Amino acid sequence: MALAPTTSSPSKRKIILDCDPGHDDAVAMILAAGNPNIELLGVTTIGGNHTLPKVTRNAQIVSTICGIEAPIHAGCSRPLVREVTIAEGIHGDTGMEIHGYDLPDPAVEVQDMHAVDFIIKTVMEAEPNTVTLVPTGPLTNIAMAVRKEPRLAERVKEVVLMGGGYHTGNWSAVAEFNIKVDPEAAHIVFNEPWKVTMVGLDLTHQALATPDVEAKVKAIGSSPADFVVGLFGAFRKNYKDAQGFDNPPVHDPCAVAYLIDPTVMTTVKAPVDVELNGALTTGMTVADFRAPAPADCHTQVAVKLDADKFWSLVIDAVKAVS
Amino acid sequence: MALAPTTSSPSKRKIILDCDPGHDDAVAMILAAGNPNIELLGVTTIGGNHTLPKVTRNAQIVSTICGIEAPIHAGCSRPLVREVTIAEGIHGDTGMEIHGYDLPDPAVEVQDMHAVDFIIKTVMEAEPNTVTLVPTGPLTNIAMAVRKEPRLAERVKEVVLMGGGYHTGNWSAVAEFNIKVDPEAAHIVFNEPWKVTMVGLDLTHQALATPDVEAKVKAIGSSPADFVVGLFGAFRKNYKDAQGFDNPPVHDPCAVAYLIDPTVMTTVKAPVDVELNGALTTGMTVADFRAPAPADCHTQVAVKLDADKFWSLVIDAVKAVS
Amino acid sequence: MALAPTTSSPSKRKIILDCDPGHDDAVAMILAAGNPNIELLGVTTIGGNHTLPKVTRNAQIVSTICGIEAPIHAGCSRPLVREVTIAEGIHGDTGMEIHGYDLPDPAVEVQDMHAVDFIIKTVMEAEPNTVTLVPTGPLTNIAMAVRKEPRLAERVKEVVLMGGGYHTGNWSAVAEFNIKVDPEAAHIVFNEPWKVTMVGLDLTHQALATPDVEAKVKAIGSSPADFVVGLFGAFRKNYKDAQGFDNPPVHDPCAVAYLIDPTVMTTVKAPVDVELNGALTTGMTVADFRAPAPADCHTQVAVKLDADKFWSLVIDAVKAVS
Amino acid sequence: MALAPTTSSPSKRKIILDCDPGHDDAVAMILAAGNPNIELLGVTTIGGNHTLPKVTRNAQIVSTICGIEAPIHAGCSRPLVREVTIAEGIHGDTGMEIHGYDLPDPAVEVQDMHAVDFIIKTVMEAEPNTVTLVPTGPLTNIAMAVRKEPRLAERVKEVVLMGGGYHTGNWSAVAEFNIKVDPEAAHIVFNEPWKVTMVGLDLTHQALATPDVEAKVKAIGSSPADFVVGLFGAFRKNYKDAQGFDNPPVHDPCAVAYLIDPTVMTTVKAPVDVELNGALTTGMTVADFRAPAPADCHTQVAVKLDADKFWSLVIDAVKAVS
Repeated sequence: MALAPTTSSPSKRKIILDCDPGHDDAVAMILAAGNPNIELLGVTTIGGNHTLPKVTRNAQIVSTICGIEAPIHAGCSRPLVREVTIAEGIHGDTGMEIHGYDLPDPAVEVQDMHAVDFIIKTVMEAEPNTVTLVPTGPLTNIAMAVRKEPRLAERVKEVVLMGGGYHTGNWSAVAEFNIKVDPEAAHIVFNEPWKVTMVGLDLTHQALATPDVEAKVKAIGSSPADFVVGLFGAFRKNYKDAQGFDNPPVHDPCAVAYLIDPTVMTTVKAPVDVELNGALTTGMTVADFRAPAPADCHTQVAVKLDADKFWSLVIDAVKAVS
Repeated sequence: MALAPTTSSPSKRKIILDCDPGHDDAVAMILAAGNPNIELLGVTTIGGNHTLPKVTRNAQIVSTICGIEAPIHAGCSRPLVREVTIAEGIHGDTGMEIHGYDLPDPAVEVQDMHAVDFIIKTVMEAEPNTVTLVPTGPLTNIAMAVRKEPRLAERVKEVVLMGGGYHTGNWSAVAEFNIKVDPEAAHIVFNEPWKVTMVGLDLTHQALATPDVEAKVKAIGSSPADFVVGLFGAFRKNYKDAQGFDNPPVHDPCAVAYLIDPTVMTTVKAPVDVELNGALTTGMTVADFRAPAPADCHTQVAVKLDADKFWSLVIDAVKAVS
Repeated sequence: MALAPTTSSPSKRKIILDCDPGHDDAVAMILAAGNPNIELLGVTTIGGNHTLPKVTRNAQIVSTICGIEAPIHAGCSRPLVREVTIAEGIHGDTGMEIHGYDLPDPAVEVQDMHAVDFIIKTVMEAEPNTVTLVPTGPLTNIAMAVRKEPRLAERVKEVVLMGGGYHTGNWSAVAEFNIKVDPEAAHIVFNEPWKVTMVGLDLTHQALATPDVEAKVKAIGSSPADFVVGLFGAFRKNYKDAQGFDNPPVHDPCAVAYLIDPTVMTTVKAPVDVELNGALTTGMTVADFRAPAPADCHTQVAVKLDADKFWSLVIDAVKAVS
Repeated sequence: MALAPTTSSPSKRKIILDCDPGHDDAVAMILAAGNPNIELLGVTTIGGNHTLPKVTRNAQIVSTICGIEAPIHAGCSRPLVREVTIAEGIHGDTGMEIHGYDLPDPAVEVQDMHAVDFIIKTVMEAEPNTVTLVPTGPLTNIAMAVRKEPRLAERVKEVVLMGGGYHTGNWSAVAEFNIKVDPEAAHIVFNEPWKVTMVGLDLTHQALATPDVEAKVKAIGSSPADFVVGLFGAFRKNYKDAQGFDNPPVHDPCAVAYLIDPTVMTTVKAPVDVELNGALTTGMTVADFRAPAPADCHTQVAVKLDADKFWSLVIDAVKAVS
C-alpha cells in the first residue's frame, strides 16, 4: 500500500532541509548532518515556530555548536495569505529555549541568496531526480519555489515533510501547526505532482524523548549532546504545560530518518489534500482512506514508527557531530 | 471518560425513532419494537436514504411485517438548506431493496400530524427527562423541532444518534451520509445543550452482518426473520459494489442497542461540532481529542462495539417480533 | 424589466406581516392596518431587532395603541444556525425606544398557535394564490414554514420582503441586518420558486423621515400620530449615532407600500441568491445584473422610491388608525 | 474623499507594467510607451487572459509593432492556489485575436530574469518611493514579489491596478476576471500597506471604444494605429458575443491614464478587501462605503471617467508610437 521504497542505494541522499528551529528542527539538522547516508546540501529557514530572524539565528547557532557546514539561506518571513502565527508557548521566546546549556553566538554566516532561489538553483543544477526537499516548518518557501519555477515539480526526487496529521491535530482539533499557519502553501505542495510523504502527528507523537532517550544522549558527553539534552529539557516542560505530554514529541527528525532508512516507519498511500475554507477544519490534511489509493496516487502518510530504530539513528548522529 | 451511564433503571426507555428506512433503519425499528427494555413511542420519517414518500412507505411496510404498533408520522422531505441527496446506490430504488422476500403492501396508517409536531407534543407532554430521541437519518426533523420549540433542549432525556464519524467517512473522505446531506441540521443538533451520543461510522463499521449472523437470523424461521435475511442479502451486495465491504455494516440498530444496554459499546466524552464551510470537509463531525473533555461537555462518541452482544440483542428482537 | 405588476385588482391584498417591532416595523403595522387596500390577516413575530419576547410585546403595544385587530402569533426566538444577534443600538433596550410618548401596557393577546403554524394554516386554508407574505425581520419563520409545509411555495401569492441590498449594506460592508442574522433562512426563502420582491437598503435608504415628514405626522394630532412622532424621534437619534444618518430610514413600511401601490417604486428583475460562506460577504444578497434576467426569473429588486407617494400612504394610514 | 493626488511633478512617472496582453493590455502598453509623462521601466507578463507563453509572445509582438524598447520579463504561469483560468472567449485563441491586420513575428527578446526578480530588483535599486507598479492582469507576480521581498511594500511609490469592481462583476455576478482567477494574490496585494488605487469595472465600463473613437484611431494612418483598429474590431465582436456590450470596454489603459493625469477620473477612498471563501462571491473586491474612510485608509477606488480626456491620451500615444 505504501509508495515504492524511496531508495536502497548505497549513495547518499541529497537533501535540502527547510526548517524553523525550533527544538526538533535542531535535532533534524543534527540527524541530517551526522548521518553518513545523507548529504545535506543546504539549510533554508522559514518563519514558523518563531519569527524568521530568530529561527535563522537558531539555525546558525545549531551549525556553530555541531560544526555543520551546509550553507544557510533565509526564506520567507510570513505565510502566503494569512497573518503570522508563531508557537512561542512550545519553543519559548527565542524559538529555541534551552535548559542548562549556554548557547554560543553564531559563528556561521547566512548566505545572501534567498532560500527560494537557493532551492530552485540547487534542484535545477543537480541531476534530475536527485534532490529531496525536507520541509519541517510551514511550506511557504517550497510553495514559492515551485510557483516561481514550475519545473521543480518534476525535477525534485521527492518531498518528505513533517506536518499535518490524518487523525491528529495540535493547532486545532484536526490541524497541525505547520499546515495551519500557511494552509495555502500546504495546498500548493500537496497538489503538485511530485511524490509527497507526509510525516505527520500520527507518526511523530510516537517519537517521544523519554527519560531513557535523554539519558542515552547525556551519556555521550559532548557539547552537541549537552545541547540536545538542554533542548529536551525545555521541550519537555513546554509540551507538558501546553499540551499535557509527559514526554515531548520530537517531530522533525522523523522526516529525515525516513530518508536514511525507510523501514523506520510504515507508510500508507492515500490521497491527501488541504482544507482552506473550513470554519473548524482549515489547515486539516484530509486523507482519504475509503478505498485503496489509486495507482497514480502521489501522496503517502506515515503511520507507525519503530521508535527504537529512530532513536538509535538520532543518537548515532549526535555522536557523529560531537 | 464517557458520559455518566445513561440508565440502569428497570423501567423501559421511552424513545422516538426518527428514521429513513433504509435497510438498517428497518433493523433498528425491529430492535426497538422487539426489545423489552424499550418503549417505542413513535416512528417518525425523514427524507434521507430515499425520498420521504418512499421511506415513509417503507416504515409502514416494516411495521406491517413485524406487527409494530407505534404510530408513524412523516416529517421533512428535504434538508434545511442544501439540495436533496439520496443513497440509492446503497438502498436501491425503493429505498429498501430486498432479495428473496416479497414485501407486502402497507397495512399500517401514517398519522396526519407532522413528525416535527409529534416530537414536540410527545416530549412536552411526557414527564421531563424521560423521552430519548433516536435519529438514524438526516437530522432535519430534530433540528426543526428544537427550533420550533426551544424548550425541547432541556426536556428530552438525551439524543442518541446514528451519524457522523470522528475518523471515518463514507460520503466524503471525512463525512458520513446522514450529516453530510443536512449539515446545518446536524450543526443545530450538536450545538443544543442536550446530551448527545454520536454512534458514528467508527462504531457501526464494527456491526457487520457476517454470514454467521445471517445464518442465525435465518434459523429463526419467521416472516420477520426472512425479511431481515432478505435485507441483509441486498445490503451485502450493494455495500460490496459501492464501498467494497465484504460484510455490510448495519448502522442504525447500534444507536438503539446503546439504549438497551450501554455496555454494548464504549464511549468517550469529547466536544463535537459540525463543519459547514469546508471545501473538503463539509458535514464532518469534528471531535476534539486533544485533551480530556471539559466537565460540562455534553457530547460523547461511540468507540468500540461488543459485536457479539449487539447481534444477540438484534436476534432476540427478531425473535420477539416474529 | 420588472416582474409583472402584482395586482391592479380593486379587492384588498391579503397579507401576513412577519415582523420584529422595531420602530419601522411598527410603522409597517400601521400602514398595513390603516390602508383600505390591505387586509391584514395576522401579525407574526420573530426575534430580530430585539429578542422574541420584546418584539412580541411591542407588536401587542402597537396594536393596543392603534386598535389593530389582526391576531398576533409569536414565532421563532433564534436564527436557524447562527447565534442570536439583535440591533439594540438602533432600537434601544426595549426594541422600540421612544421619545416623549408613554407606551401603554399591552391590551391585546398573543395567540397560542406558533407563528409557523399560523402561516401554514392561513395560506393552506385560503384560496390558492391569494395570500402574500410580508417579512420585515429575519426570515426564520418563513423558512421554517416552507420547510415544514413545502406546498407553501406554490400556494402563496408572493413574498415581498424588507431585507438585503444589492449595492448597500448596514450590518457589514455588503450585508443588511435581516439577512445577515439568519442567512440560512434567507437562502431558503430566496431559493424557493415563489415570486420574491426584495425591498432592500438600496430602496429603503430613500424612505427618510425628514423633519417635514415628522411635522406632517405631528399635525395629525392623535395618539397613534404622537406614537409615530415619538418613534421617529428615537430612531433619528439612534441612526445618527450608529450610522451617521441625518434622517432615519424607515425601512419596513416600504414593503407594505409596494403591495398597496406598486408604482410607489420601480423594480428590476434579477437573479438573487444569498452568500452563506464568505469571510467578508456572509449574508450578502448577491444580485446578478450582468445580463437581462431570464424569463423565468422569480426574483426582483426594488430600485427607486417615489418618496412623496410613499409618505402620503403612511400619513393617510396614521390618520386612518387614529 | 480621494487619496491625495499622486503627483503633480513635472518629472516622468516610472512604472512597471505587469500585464497579460490581451487587447486592452496592448493599448495600455502603447499608452505607457507613447506618453511623455511615463517612463516605462519594463513590461512583465503574467498568465491571465491567455497562457503565459501566449501573452508573453503578444507583449513581444506589441513591442515589435510599436517600437517599444522597455525590457520584457516573463513571470508566473499560474495562480497561487487555484487552477488556471483564461479568458479565451474575450481574447481569442491567440490571446490577442485581431481583425484585418497581420501580426508580425516578434523581433524583441524576452529577458532571462524572472518577472518577480525584475520587479524586486528594479524597485529596490531605484530611489525609494519612485517606482509605481501597474498590474493589469492577475496579481500573482506582484504578490510573489512582495512575499519574496517584504520591503517592497514600503519601497514602491504606489500600486495602480486594473481589476475588481465595487458594484460590478464580469466573471461572476460580483467578481472581475483579474481578481477572480487569483483571489489569494489579490488578497495579498490589497492587504499590504502600500497605496492601492483600484481601477475596476465600475470605471472601465465607461472606457468604451465607440465607432467615433475607432474612426479617430484609424485616421492616424500608421501601422500601430491599424493594429489598434484591428484589436478594437475583434474586441468589439467578442465583447458583444460574450457579454452583450455594444462597444467594448478598454480596461487596462485606464490605470495608466490615471498616472499620466489623475484628473482623468474621480476616485474615492474606501477600505477594500478580497473575498476568498464565498460560494457566490469569491474574488469580489469588497469596498466599504458605509462611512467616510478612516484617515489611514490606503486604498481608493476609481468611480467616474472623463472619457474624452481618456481617449485623447490614448490617441495621442498611438500617434507618438507611430
